[in-house]
Amino acid sequence: MKKVKIYITLKPGVLDPQGKAVQESLHTLGYEAVQEARVGKYMELIVDDNGDVEKQVEDMCAKLLANPVIEDYKYTVEEGVTQ
Amino acid sequence: MKKVKIYITLKPGVLDPQGKAVQESLHTLGYEAVQEARVGKYMELIVDDNGDVEKQVEDMCAKLLANPVIEDYKYTVEEGVTQ
Repeated sequence: MKKVKIYITLKPGVLDPQGKAVQESLHTLGYEAVQEARVGKYMELIVDDNGDVEKQVEDMCAKLLANPVIEDYKYTVEEGVTQ
Repeated sequence: MKKVKIYITLKPGVLDPQGKAVQESLHTLGYEAVQEARVGKYMELIVDDNGDVEKQVEDMCAKLLANPVIEDYKYTVEEGVTQ
């Protein structure tokens, strides 16, 4: 088993209304120091260790998990997860 | 300025229907090796460097960004971001 951590973020320049809402809410709560907030997704997958896991994860991100038109993604693969 | 990265995940044991949907979609696409998928949130904040940024971020997570009843959060603070 491998544990895969995937980070999906909006590309720079893509409007992020959810991030804007978070920023404004933080200001309302008194955290005026927050200059910018951007919201993305974080996923953890447990994947059977057969074949090229990195290649599979790259494909999964490009085909389903992220929208490559407006989103960037990064991932890390951790070895030897036992369940 | 400091760049803060926040990772919000559902606590272990909390049902994750969104993760389940992702897992089933991956299976439908042929990625049968995926044993589990859990979906969380990832946020990036740019914060003015006045006072104890870590303390402020801890408060923001507990009060607004995460739901401490069902979610865990982690964050990292990176020094010296220039805009």
